[in-house]
Amino acid sequence: MEIIEKVRSLKEYRGKLIGSVGFVPTMGYLHEGHMSLVRRARAENLSVFVSIFVNPTQFGPSEDFASYPRDAERDLAMLQKEKVNVVFMPTAEEIYPDGCNSWVEVSGITDRLEGKARPGHFKGVTTVVAKLFNIVEPDKAYFGQKDAQQLAVIRKMVNDLNMNLEIIPVPTAREPDGLAMSSRNVRLNPEERKAAVVLSQALNLARGQWESGQRDASQMRDAMSALIKKEPLASIDYVSVADTQTLAELDMINRTALVSLAVKIGKTRLIDNIVLGE
Amino acid sequence: MEIIEKVRSLKEYRGKLIGSVGFVPTMGYLHEGHMSLVRRARAENLSVFVSIFVNPTQFGPSEDFASYPRDAERDLAMLQKEKVNVVFMPTAEEIYPDGCNSWVEVSGITDRLEGKARPGHFKGVTTVVAKLFNIVEPDKAYFGQKDAQQLAVIRKMVNDLNMNLEIIPVPTAREPDGLAMSSRNVRLNPEERKAAVVLSQALNLARGQWESGQRDASQMRDAMSALIKKEPLASIDYVSVADTQTLAELDMINRTALVSLAVKIGKTRLIDNIVLGE
Repeated sequence: MEIIEKVRSLKEYRGKLIGSVGFVPTMGYLHEGHMSLVRRARAENLSVFVSIFVNPTQFGPSEDFASYPRDAERDLAMLQKEKVNVVFMPTAEEIYPDGCNSWVEVSGITDRLEGKARPGHFKGVTTVVAKLFNIVEPDKAYFGQKDAQQLAVIRKMVNDLNMNLEIIPVPTAREPDGLAMSSRNVRLNPEERKAAVVLSQALNLARGQWESGQRDASQMRDAMSALIKKEPLASIDYVSVADTQTLAELDMINRTALVSLAVKIGKTRLIDNIVLGE
Repeated sequence: MEIIEKVRSLKEYRGKLIGSVGFVPTMGYLHEGHMSLVRRARAENLSVFVSIFVNPTQFGPSEDFASYPRDAERDLAMLQKEKVNVVFMPTAEEIYPDGCNSWVEVSGITDRLEGKARPGHFKGVTTVVAKLFNIVEPDKAYFGQKDAQQLAVIRKMVNDLNMNLEIIPVPTAREPDGLAMSSRNVRLNPEERKAAVVLSQALNLARGQWESGQRDASQMRDAMSALIKKEPLASIDYVSVADTQTLAELDMINRTALVSLAVKIGKTRLIDNIVLGE
């Protein structure tokens, strides 16, 4: 497994490869969710590239960039086991050298949900992902369904800007009790960890309602919110039932719908989602 | 010579090629300036692609998108003579389908000169050029020095976003009396055409001053402005002596300087520039 820190070295290495390249961009602190992306990439490509880069431009000034969990040694051991070919681990200065001031931005769908809660977040995401795509030149890139809006935004960017790769969505990996895997779960104390199951419980409630014929999105949001409010450690950021393409809130669930939520458990902000009617 | 209108067809054609591809993006109504780019691309690459696309997103609402001169038949005849391999002539709907809303933007240097005079102009330029680069995947792309700020902005975009191609600048082509070639020159009536020589005269004045040791940028700007004001058909938009990298106005010309100007001759806005100290 090659560990590469420089853009130039990565491009040189990439230039010599033949055959398909699968790419999994990550912020490290890998868990089973990431590994499911890596294994999918491994199964579908001759070479697999993984990037580990905690991207400063996608964190707001009051967000958790400095305290985002990091453990490069553990990450590398996990990736080696999966026979990853290249790990790209650049510094922030390597990705954003002095004076770097060009941006890729998807308008419209980035105004909602995570984009509304975290202004500037997606501009940072699309910029770094576009840069990584140019550096790695993958045939396929793998993204978790857990970050549903990120997946929608990146697909839109690739489509709108005519980029030459395929985006492969991979289902959310979950703990046995239903909690979606996330690098941020490590911050939950034992009591919060128990409380965090309320996110997937709310989504299960929504799925149950939908299967019983509920089509009123407002009633569905209310039921989910009521369930979450019973958990004293939880505070709702948003509960959404939205069009999967535009992410606009629905009145009636008369098409495929993204049910998503952001909830703080103690000080840790968690997100999760399901798609109804796929 | 292949004439291709669809993104998908262009990508299919491109996918089968081996060897280097040179690319000349244009808005059509070709003149000797464009042809010097095409000939340079022809000399340096196995395949040459030219795009003809009057890009709506780089024109402001009060600008001349609708009246921008067009003559596809003449353009194609000129390109055929130069043994161009592919001409890409998409419609606006092909490049910007319904809902397309992703943008590439270079901040900072786009606030000055043309960017200041034409808000949003460079956002349209960088977006369409990034899209064309993704569609054509050239090894080298050729841009005229006449649009000096555009050249600087595109170089910065390529560098900042780690794009995989080389940008080749080509000197400005001029009429015998010094007027920089431009598709917009066709709009000048005979009297305005004569008056338009004042742009290159002002640049020559600046070069002469510089060669005589003038290093005060403000005095240089004043002298150029005074010369232009003697021409009754001319009205100055800006006269600039700026750093070639940042495009910030200089006080003392103590490094390589871009001397540039935008002047309206009658209703036609013309630009031109030279670089001092290269």
